[in-house]
Amino acid sequence: MPLYIIEHPAALLNMKQKEKVCKEITRIHCDVTGALPSFVNVVFHTTDDNVEFVNNKLRHKSRIVGNIRADRSAAEKESLINQINDAWFTIVGERCHLVALNEVKSENAAEDGILLPAAGQEFEWLAKHMETFEKRAEKGEETSQDLLADLKAMQSKI
Amino acid sequence: MPLYIIEHPAALLNMKQKEKVCKEITRIHCDVTGALPSFVNVVFHTTDDNVEFVNNKLRHKSRIVGNIRADRSAAEKESLINQINDAWFTIVGERCHLVALNEVKSENAAEDGILLPAAGQEFEWLAKHMETFEKRAEKGEETSQDLLADLKAMQSKI
Amino acid sequence: MPLYIIEHPAALLNMKQKEKVCKEITRIHCDVTGALPSFVNVVFHTTDDNVEFVNNKLRHKSRIVGNIRADRSAAEKESLINQINDAWFTIVGERCHLVALNEVKSENAAEDGILLPAAGQEFEWLAKHMETFEKRAEKGEETSQDLLADLKAMQSKI
Repeated sequence: MPLYIIEHPAALLNMKQKEKVCKEITRIHCDVTGALPSFVNVVFHTTDDNVEFVNNKLRHKSRIVGNIRADRSAAEKESLINQINDAWFTIVGERCHLVALNEVKSENAAEDGILLPAAGQEFEWLAKHMETFEKRAEKGEETSQDLLADLKAMQSKI
Repeated sequence: MPLYIIEHPAALLNMKQKEKVCKEITRIHCDVTGALPSFVNVVFHTTDDNVEFVNNKLRHKSRIVGNIRADRSAAEKESLINQINDAWFTIVGERCHLVALNEVKSENAAEDGILLPAAGQEFEWLAKHMETFEKRAEKGEETSQDLLADLKAMQSKI
Repeated sequence: MPLYIIEHPAALLNMKQKEKVCKEITRIHCDVTGALPSFVNVVFHTTDDNVEFVNNKLRHKSRIVGNIRADRSAAEKESLINQINDAWFTIVGERCHLVALNEVKSENAAEDGILLPAAGQEFEWLAKHMETFEKRAEKGEETSQDLLADLKAMQSKI
């Protein structure tokens, strides 16, 4: 978490644009919430096989649903939505029809088998599981390796 | 918003039935909530590539998930669900296995880049953004053109 | 309900593993919540056509989202998540990247056209709709036949 799911017509974005959208969403999410980039999931899913209507008319639109941990402030959520909309418009050249945030209670989610912390409890959570992450990274698990690299990068900035 | 997502086996609905289901969902949603049809999104997604189980048995069922703004009354939501189930049964000829409403806080969603109003704040929101919608409609953006047509049709009824 | 949706790369699970995962999720959900197996939906959806990133890197991960009725206790939800993660790891041989529970208010969902009961109101709800289930089972509707079989099995244990 977060998990941003982007549904779009295939012809609307090429691979380069997908990489850019992913980079911007990852950057914006980390800027606004303080999350580490190694936690950010971005998924692109084409909808060409769907039949889609708006206003009873056949219209094929793009949508972004961001599954984020609950308890972010209204200001943070507004900033996420507005910045993501702006980034999309710049990269894709047309508006994203719908951007929505779906709030998941932290107690309702686990990543790589470890229950997530409540917002504000991230440091205690990292400390508690650090040995696990280090063991996994040694065994070659990429997500733990990425997390440790994130933490090193963060420390070097302090 | 709303965004109704219908997952179904391909063979269950032909194009005519999809159009009818869309028309009925759009009509029911606007009847019950007072929304304008230009805001109603209906998406059909076939699930033939899925492997699906109910009760540990391979069973391929239909599902409708309606993503609606939060704060609708229990009576409104019950009416939405019951009317949609009835319409589906009439058009498709078998029950829809699951109909569920997922409530999205209005502050958590934007359409075409504009944050949505809370339920009950629609008129202030329309007034605030009218100039934007008019400019977009002039430039040829369909969703703004549809919204203005909706508003005209509504005024002619008053 | 519940509806567990599993998104995974096609090559990760063969049919036998899908059956095992389904069986385990169904068993765990019924153990923890007291639900009847005839209500448990498990859907497997391959994501090979997606473009997926974690930490700005192309990475294809598995995800399980369980749509469950609201009002389960924190202990129940933790148990669901941990047991599902353990079962997945045993059957699939690698961690599931994300397991999340999405809580749906009981008043917001209907199954086969019948609105769901609040947690704790299941027996009253069954009694109220028993005649409907019996009529449907006689007419050959599988989900009602399965529910009646579940109830019989449960009674024989008392």
